[in-house]
Amino acid sequence: MKLYDLELSGNCYKVRLFAALARIPLDVVPVDFLGGEHKRPPLSDLNPWGEIPVLVDGDVVLRDSHAILVYLASRHGGAAWLPGDPAGLAEVVQWLSTAANEVQNGPCAARLVDKFGYGLDKAETIRRSLRILPLIDAHLAASAWLAAGRPTIADCAVFPYVALAPEGGVSLEPYGSIRSWIARVKALPNFLPMPGV
Amino acid sequence: MKLYDLELSGNCYKVRLFAALARIPLDVVPVDFLGGEHKRPPLSDLNPWGEIPVLVDGDVVLRDSHAILVYLASRHGGAAWLPGDPAGLAEVVQWLSTAANEVQNGPCAARLVDKFGYGLDKAETIRRSLRILPLIDAHLAASAWLAAGRPTIADCAVFPYVALAPEGGVSLEPYGSIRSWIARVKALPNFLPMPGV
Repeated sequence: MKLYDLELSGNCYKVRLFAALARIPLDVVPVDFLGGEHKRPPLSDLNPWGEIPVLVDGDVVLRDSHAILVYLASRHGGAAWLPGDPAGLAEVVQWLSTAANEVQNGPCAARLVDKFGYGLDKAETIRRSLRILPLIDAHLAASAWLAAGRPTIADCAVFPYVALAPEGGVSLEPYGSIRSWIARVKALPNFLPMPGV
Repeated sequence: MKLYDLELSGNCYKVRLFAALARIPLDVVPVDFLGGEHKRPPLSDLNPWGEIPVLVDGDVVLRDSHAILVYLASRHGGAAWLPGDPAGLAEVVQWLSTAANEVQNGPCAARLVDKFGYGLDKAETIRRSLRILPLIDAHLAASAWLAAGRPTIADCAVFPYVALAPEGGVSLEPYGSIRSWIARVKALPNFLPMPGV
């Protein structure tokens, strides 16, 4: 099972982190991102969107980090990390949507500007960060984990770009419950770090 | 089972559309959106994010349209619309992420500017629309439905804001495969329209 990967990508890290926590073996293939390898065949044939991560497991090819988390959890022995009951599953999906939209376009986008020089509207990324982080913080003031009362792929999906927020100039100092949650995630058995986390 | 709803919201329409297609009874509760009812208790207690739709089913409260689709499909008899196998489930989740990010911040956001006067960067919403629509069109040139070779909640999640794109000044004229797919969705038994679709 191959993961086309970039070490500094939080979206790739979501997958590496979960695979480490759930002890799922991955063949990690580094992609020459600066050289645009993901925009050219053969990678752009696997993912026409020209993005990474990409997971290839036999005939299954997946292009979205959240879809990859769902696949690994349900197919490769990580079932404890993805509730099977409808309410628990939906609770996790709520946070996958949050990771895909509010976190991606907030703290992740702010980091893309500061660390990689992306031409995005920095003020807008900060505005979005300052909306979503207090909501996450308030949620975590009442629950140790994002969903289902235990560590799930929801935590793996939201953790990377929240923990990396300071690399986009977004301080986590005001968010005590987020900082406690980050410490809990880091204390999970088999936790895997990345640069900046 | 109550759905707090706004008729002109594509995110609310995702849920109404799926419930109609899968014949799932919903008690639709109109929200006074212009009056800010969703930003005040009791609705803001159900969803601290101050957004709709919100679904309430006994003790289960869900705040995200995609999570609601997953819940209804897995809990209320819409299982044919959500594959249970890991690859099929992940394929659907890919499109839920696309709906939550690329479609929400592309054609949906363009419509928010033109139709409701939201102060977003219109040029950026157009740029994002012109990136995602060709990718969806190319995918639909090869498959009749977005995922799993049949109608699923992925179609219900992506359909509303793609079909409403012209209300944000984004023409669907260049995208023949999208237009054929829209016609296929509209021809599904029990299809439910909304204004502008």
